[in-house]
Amino acid sequence: MTSQKEPQGESSTLTKVTGPSSWSRVSCPCCISSHIEPLVLIQLAESVQPITKQWIMSMISAPVKAGGAQLLVHPGEDMKGDMIVVAAPRCTLLRVTEDLGLCKTYQDGNMTAFSFDDRDNFCNIDDMQKFLTLAERQYIVKYELDSMRAMEDQRIPGIPTPKGKLKARVSILQKLEKAGVIRNVTPLHDQKLLTALGKQWYSQKSLWGQPLDSIHAYFGGTIAYYFSFLDYYTLSLFPPAILGLFITFFLPSANFSSGNKSNGEPTALKDDDDQPSVSSYMVQAVFSMLWSTIFMELWKRRSSALSYRWGTFNLAEQFQEPRPGFHGELGTNPVTGRLEPLFPDWKRRLRMGLVSVPVVGVFLGLVVMGMAGFYFCERLVSNWHKGSGSYFTVPLLYIPSIAHIVYTNVLGNIYRNVALQLTESENHREESSFDYHHTTKVLVFTFFNNFAVLFHIAFFKEDMPLLRKRLASLLIVTQVVNQCTEVVVPFLVDRFLTSADRNLKEDDPEVDHLQAQGSLPAFPGLFAEYIELLVQFGYLSLFSCVYPLTAPLLLLNNLTEIRTDAYKLCKLFNKPFSAPVANMGVWQLAFEVLSFISVVSNCWLLLLSPRVKELTQEASLSSSQVLVIAVIVEHVLIMVKMILAFMIPDEPDWVRIKREQIEYHSMQALKKQRIKSSRVDDKLPPKAKMGE
Amino acid sequence: MTSQKEPQGESSTLTKVTGPSSWSRVSCPCCISSHIEPLVLIQLAESVQPITKQWIMSMISAPVKAGGAQLLVHPGEDMKGDMIVVAAPRCTLLRVTEDLGLCKTYQDGNMTAFSFDDRDNFCNIDDMQKFLTLAERQYIVKYELDSMRAMEDQRIPGIPTPKGKLKARVSILQKLEKAGVIRNVTPLHDQKLLTALGKQWYSQKSLWGQPLDSIHAYFGGTIAYYFSFLDYYTLSLFPPAILGLFITFFLPSANFSSGNKSNGEPTALKDDDDQPSVSSYMVQAVFSMLWSTIFMELWKRRSSALSYRWGTFNLAEQFQEPRPGFHGELGTNPVTGRLEPLFPDWKRRLRMGLVSVPVVGVFLGLVVMGMAGFYFCERLVSNWHKGSGSYFTVPLLYIPSIAHIVYTNVLGNIYRNVALQLTESENHREESSFDYHHTTKVLVFTFFNNFAVLFHIAFFKEDMPLLRKRLASLLIVTQVVNQCTEVVVPFLVDRFLTSADRNLKEDDPEVDHLQAQGSLPAFPGLFAEYIELLVQFGYLSLFSCVYPLTAPLLLLNNLTEIRTDAYKLCKLFNKPFSAPVANMGVWQLAFEVLSFISVVSNCWLLLLSPRVKELTQEASLSSSQVLVIAVIVEHVLIMVKMILAFMIPDEPDWVRIKREQIEYHSMQALKKQRIKSSRVDDKLPPKAKMGE
Repeated sequence: MTSQKEPQGESSTLTKVTGPSSWSRVSCPCCISSHIEPLVLIQLAESVQPITKQWIMSMISAPVKAGGAQLLVHPGEDMKGDMIVVAAPRCTLLRVTEDLGLCKTYQDGNMTAFSFDDRDNFCNIDDMQKFLTLAERQYIVKYELDSMRAMEDQRIPGIPTPKGKLKARVSILQKLEKAGVIRNVTPLHDQKLLTALGKQWYSQKSLWGQPLDSIHAYFGGTIAYYFSFLDYYTLSLFPPAILGLFITFFLPSANFSSGNKSNGEPTALKDDDDQPSVSSYMVQAVFSMLWSTIFMELWKRRSSALSYRWGTFNLAEQFQEPRPGFHGELGTNPVTGRLEPLFPDWKRRLRMGLVSVPVVGVFLGLVVMGMAGFYFCERLVSNWHKGSGSYFTVPLLYIPSIAHIVYTNVLGNIYRNVALQLTESENHREESSFDYHHTTKVLVFTFFNNFAVLFHIAFFKEDMPLLRKRLASLLIVTQVVNQCTEVVVPFLVDRFLTSADRNLKEDDPEVDHLQAQGSLPAFPGLFAEYIELLVQFGYLSLFSCVYPLTAPLLLLNNLTEIRTDAYKLCKLFNKPFSAPVANMGVWQLAFEVLSFISVVSNCWLLLLSPRVKELTQEASLSSSQVLVIAVIVEHVLIMVKMILAFMIPDEPDWVRIKREQIEYHSMQALKKQRIKSSRVDDKLPPKAKMGE
Repeated sequence: MTSQKEPQGESSTLTKVTGPSSWSRVSCPCCISSHIEPLVLIQLAESVQPITKQWIMSMISAPVKAGGAQLLVHPGEDMKGDMIVVAAPRCTLLRVTEDLGLCKTYQDGNMTAFSFDDRDNFCNIDDMQKFLTLAERQYIVKYELDSMRAMEDQRIPGIPTPKGKLKARVSILQKLEKAGVIRNVTPLHDQKLLTALGKQWYSQKSLWGQPLDSIHAYFGGTIAYYFSFLDYYTLSLFPPAILGLFITFFLPSANFSSGNKSNGEPTALKDDDDQPSVSSYMVQAVFSMLWSTIFMELWKRRSSALSYRWGTFNLAEQFQEPRPGFHGELGTNPVTGRLEPLFPDWKRRLRMGLVSVPVVGVFLGLVVMGMAGFYFCERLVSNWHKGSGSYFTVPLLYIPSIAHIVYTNVLGNIYRNVALQLTESENHREESSFDYHHTTKVLVFTFFNNFAVLFHIAFFKEDMPLLRKRLASLLIVTQVVNQCTEVVVPFLVDRFLTSADRNLKEDDPEVDHLQAQGSLPAFPGLFAEYIELLVQFGYLSLFSCVYPLTAPLLLLNNLTEIRTDAYKLCKLFNKPFSAPVANMGVWQLAFEVLSFISVVSNCWLLLLSPRVKELTQEASLSSSQVLVIAVIVEHVLIMVKMILAFMIPDEPDWVRIKREQIEYHSMQALKKQRIKSSRVDDKLPPKAKMGE
C-alpha cells in the first residue's frame, strides 16, 4: 500500500541502521513497509533495569485497547541500553490525525477534516511523509505516548513498590517521568531537512521572508505561529520606525505649536533640551494608538488565513481525549459519549475565582510593596549618607538596590511554582486551556515586574526625562544583552564546547547521532520569546510618544532576533514537540489588552509632557479643566479604537466562506445521516408509527 | 396522512365557512385534508380588477419552481372582492420549516434541526397544529409569499404597463405592495386561542408570571422575546427598588461620612436639604454598576435557554434565501451553491463606513447644535426680557422652547427617512442584519435626543438638584402619559368606537369577521416599546445615584406596562408577523453599551455631587487630585465590570453541552457522508487511483 520506491532521502541514513529487522512487529497488515522512520527518542535513566525497559517497550507497542500506544519501538542498540526509539505505523498516524481534527487537502482541493474511513479521497494519502508534516508525525507519537493508560491497578516491573504502583486510568508516561524512569522524550532531528531549512532561514543573505511553511512542516504549529507573528510584527514596525526617525531627525526644533518659546531662537537650544515638541508628541500618541489597533486586527486576519493553510482551523480539543494530568470522576462525556474523567465546570470556575485570582493579587501586591519599600529605603539611606557625610556609608547606598533585586528574584521563583500549582489545581481538561491559564498567570506577574517601575516614573514621579532615559537604556541594554546571550554565547558554546555532535561524520554509528541529540539541553519553550516581544510592544505602544526612537531600535532588534531565534532552535537545543494550533492562544489576548492600555497610557503621558503643561498654562486653563479635556479625549480615543476593531473583520472573506461551507455541509450531512440511521432502526422492530 | 379526527377546535369556526370546497387545489397527495386552516389575509386595493386578483391567486398557488408560493388560496367570498385568504398545505409548511432551520423535538427528546426527509422521526409530525405553532405557520406563509419571484420579464394582468411591469427575479409581493395593489398582508387571529391567552396574560389577578410559551406560540419569536425580557427586567428591578426605597426613607439623615456637618443636628435640616448622603451616593453608584452588569449577563443565559426551548438556536439565515429587497448580480452562492443575487461584503462595508457613519454623525451634530442654539436663544431672550422689563416680551420667552420642539420633531422625521434609505442602500442580505443596522441608526439618534439634555445638565451645568428634578418629572410624566396613551385612550376607543368587531356574534358570516380584522390599525412594531425600556434603563443605570426613587417608580411602571402592552397587542391592532429569532438582536447590544456607559457616568456624577465636593475640600485635596482619583476609580470599575462579564458564561452549561453535541454529531456525519458519496462516485468511472 505504501509507495516504497519513492525517494525518501530525508531519513534514509537513520533507516540504514535501525532497519525494519530490529523493530517491533507491526500489528496491522496495511502498515507493513520496508521503510520505518524513527520519530521520537525516549531516554531512560541509567539505573533502569532491562525488565523495566522491556515492559515500557511492550506497552508502547501494545494496541490501544490494552492501554498501549500502538507504535513501533526499537531498543536503540547502544551500550548503556538507556534509549528507546519510537516510530509510528501508518494506521496509528491516520487514526490520530482524525482524533486531532487536523484538516488535509481533499481531492476537490479544499482543506477538509481528515476522516480515516474516507482516507482514499485525501491527497498524498499513500505517502505519510507527504501527507503529514514531520512535526505532525512526531506530535502524533507524543500524543499516543501521553494517552497510554494503565487499564487496572498494577506494578511496573523492576521498580520498587511505592514508586512503581500504577493505579487504573493513570497516564503511564507521566507516572514514569515522575518516578524518574524516563529522563526525557524528544522528537528526532532530520539532519538533511534541518540543513536545508537553516539555509533558507538564517543563513540567507536577504533580510526578508522566512520560509514559514517549511518551519511549520519541520517544527510544528506553536513554533511556526511564533515566527509568523515575529515576521509580521517586524514588518509592521516600519511605519512607526519611519515616523520615529522623522520626528527625531527632521523635527528637532519645536514647530508652531510651541513656537512661543523658541521664536527665532537657534535650534541648538532645542536639541539641548532634547524634548520632542507638543505636536510631535500628539502625532506620535495618536499614531501609536491607531497603529496598535490596526496591527492587531490585521494579525487576526493573517492568523486565521494561516490556520486554514495549515489545516488547524477545525481542531476541536473539547472532542479529544482529556490531557494526561486531568482527573475527575469517571463518567460518560455528554458530547462524545466516551468514557473519561469528568470535572464540573462550576468547580473549576469557583477555584479560579476564590483561590487563583486572590493569590495572584497578593503576589502583585507584594511586587508593589517591594517597589515601595525600595524607594523608601533608598531615600532613607541617601538621607543618612548625606547626614553622615562619611565615605563609609557609600556601600550602604547599594543595599536597597541589591535587596530589591534579591527580593524580586526570590518572589519570581516562588511565584512560578505557585502559578503552576494553582493551574494544576484548576484541573483544566484541555492542554490549550491549561497553557492559557498558566501563561496568563505568569504573564501578568512578569508584565507587572517589567512595567511597574516605568509607570511609577511616568505617573507618580511625573519625570519625563527620567522616563526617556530609562526607556532608552532599557532598549539598548536589552538589545546588547540579547545579542550576547542569544547569539554570541551560544555560538561560542556550540563551536568550542558541545562539539560532540559536530564532529560526528555521516558514517558514524547511528547510535552516536542519537546520543548526541539527546545530550542537548531541552528547549525552554516560547514563553521567554513571547514575553520579550510583549514587553517590547509595551515599550513601543505605552511610552513611544516619550521616546520616538523606540520603534527603529525595535526594528533593528527584531531583524537580528528572527535569525538568532532560528539558529538557537535549529542548533542549540533539543527539538521541541509543538502542537498543531489555530492561533497564538493567550498571547493574542495579551497583545490586545496591551494595545488597549496603550490608549489610556498615551493619553496621560501626553497630559504630563512639560510642553503640554506650558501650553495649558498659557491658555490659562485650570489643571482640572485640562484633566477633564484629557478624560474626554481618552474616552473618544477608546471609542474610536473599539469602532475600528469592530469594523475590520477578524477573518478574510475567503476563510469565512470556507468556514460557512463546512458548517453548511455538515448541517446537511447530519440530517441525511439521521434519515439513514432511522431507516436502519426501522428495519429492526416493526414500527407502531406506520400503522397510524 | 394528516389526522383528521383530532379535535381542532382552534379554527373550526373559520373552517365552517371557508370549507375545503372553495379553496384552490392541493397539488400534493399527502396534503389533502378535510380541514384547511386559514392563516393569512391579503387585502387588495378596492380598485383591483378581478383579472389581477385571479393572477395573484394563481401565483400564490403555483408551485415554487414556477416562481409561486405553493400555498392554498381562497377568494374570500365578500361583496367587494378585495380579499384573499391564504392557507398552507402540509408539504409547504414542512419544507419551509427546514429552510428556516427551525428545531423541533426529535424522537429522542432533543431539539433537532428539522429535516423534511427525516420527518417521520419528529414528534407530532402528523398534526401541523401541534408540530408548528400558529405564529410559525403564519410566518411560513409570509416567508413563502415574500419569496414569490417573477421567473422572466412579464406584465401583471389588469395593471397599466409602467406599474405592471415585472422584471425577472423581482419579488412579486414587494412589487404589488409598491404598486398599491396589495393594501396589507395580515396573519389572522384565532379568537378562541386569543381569548384563552388574554385570560392568562392580562386579565389574571396575580402580578407575576406571563404565559411566555403561549405568547411564543401565538405571537411568535420577536414578540415573545420582548415580553420575556420585560418580565425578566421587571423581576430584576426588585433589588435596586428595595435599595432605592431604603436609601430614601430609612437613611434620610446623612451618616458618618458626611457627619462633620450635621453633628448632632436634627434630621429636619437634612430632609430639607433633600440630598442623599455621600455614602448612599457611593453605595447606589457601585450597586448600580454591578447590578447592570450582572443583569445583562444573566439575561444572556436566559436568552440562550429560551432559544433552545423555542427551537431557534440553529437558525442560519446566511443559508436561507436572501430577503426580498436584496439585489445584486446573479451568481452562485459559494456556501449553499444556490443561484441568487450576490453583493460583495467590502462594498457594503465601504458604504457603511463612508456614507452611513458620516451622515449619522452629521445628524447627531445637528441635535447638539439644536440644543446649543436653544440654550443660547433662551439666555438671549431672558436677558432681553429682563432688560426691557415689559410684559409684552413675556410671550417671547416661549419662542426658544417652541422653536426647539419644532426643530427636534422635523429633524427626527427627516432622520427616520434618511436612516431607512441609508440601510436600504447598504443592501443587507439577511432580514435580521437589515433590522440590526436600521434599528441601530434610529436608536442612536433617539437615545441622543433623550439624554443630551440630561448629560448637559449633569456635566456642563453641574446642577445636581436640577438633574434630580428633571429625572423625577420625566419618570412621573412618562408614566402618566404612558398610562393615558397606552391604557385609557385605547380602552375607551375599543369600547365605544371600534365596536364593529365586538358586536359580531359567532354565527355572523365569516367574511365579516375577516373584514373586521383587516380594519384594525397595523401594529407599529416593537421599536417604541424597546426604546421605552432602554430609556428607562438609561435613567436607572446612568443617573440612579442622583435620584434613588428611579427604580421603585420603574418597577411600578413595568408592572402596568406588561399588561397594557399585552392588551394592546391582543385587542387594538392587527396581529403582526413575528419571525423566529434566537435573541433580542440589536437591543441586546444597546443595553450592554448602556450598562458600560453607566460606569463612566456614575463615576463622574459621584464626583460632582456636592457632598463629595465638600468632603474633598475638607481633606484639602486639590481638584486635580480628586480628578485623578476619580479616573483611577473609573478605570478600576470598568476592569471589574469586564472581569465579571468574562467570568459569567453566556450560556448555561446544559445549553453549551447540547450545542457541542450537535456540533460533534454533524462533524461526524459530514465525514460519513463524504465516504458514502465518494463510494457512489467510485462506482461510476473506473478509478485510476486504484491502480497505484
